[in-house]
Amino acid sequence: MARVVVDVMLKPEILDPQGQAIAQALPRLGFGGVADVRAGKHFVLDVDDDVSEQAVREIADTLLANPVIEDFEVRAE
Amino acid sequence: MARVVVDVMLKPEILDPQGQAIAQALPRLGFGGVADVRAGKHFVLDVDDDVSEQAVREIADTLLANPVIEDFEVRAE
Repeated sequence: MARVVVDVMLKPEILDPQGQAIAQALPRLGFGGVADVRAGKHFVLDVDDDVSEQAVREIADTLLANPVIEDFEVRAE
Repeated sequence: MARVVVDVMLKPEILDPQGQAIAQALPRLGFGGVADVRAGKHFVLDVDDDVSEQAVREIADTLLANPVIEDFEVRAE
């Protein structure tokens, strides 16, 4: 059994209101020095050892991310 | 300017309906071999170089995660 992580983020050209809201709230709450925040999704998959990275990429592309507006990264952990 | 990543996940003992829904959908969609899926949040912060990891941990604990039901991990990228 292997653990694979998929991180899904909005493409850089897509506006991220959640990240912007956090970035704007930080100075009001006393946290300075944060220039930008982007918010995305983090998935942890427990997969059988015979599941290839290619299969996980297909899962990410089909189910976990919307490839029109999101990019994803796959990595073993 | 440094890039810091904060991953927020439900604590292991907290039920994760989103992850369960994905795990149950996968076999129906022809993807076998995935035993478990957990879903969480992924934040990418661009911070000034003088912002300590401790400060980012405080931001994560205050704003990005709900420490009652969620754990978080901070790492530089």
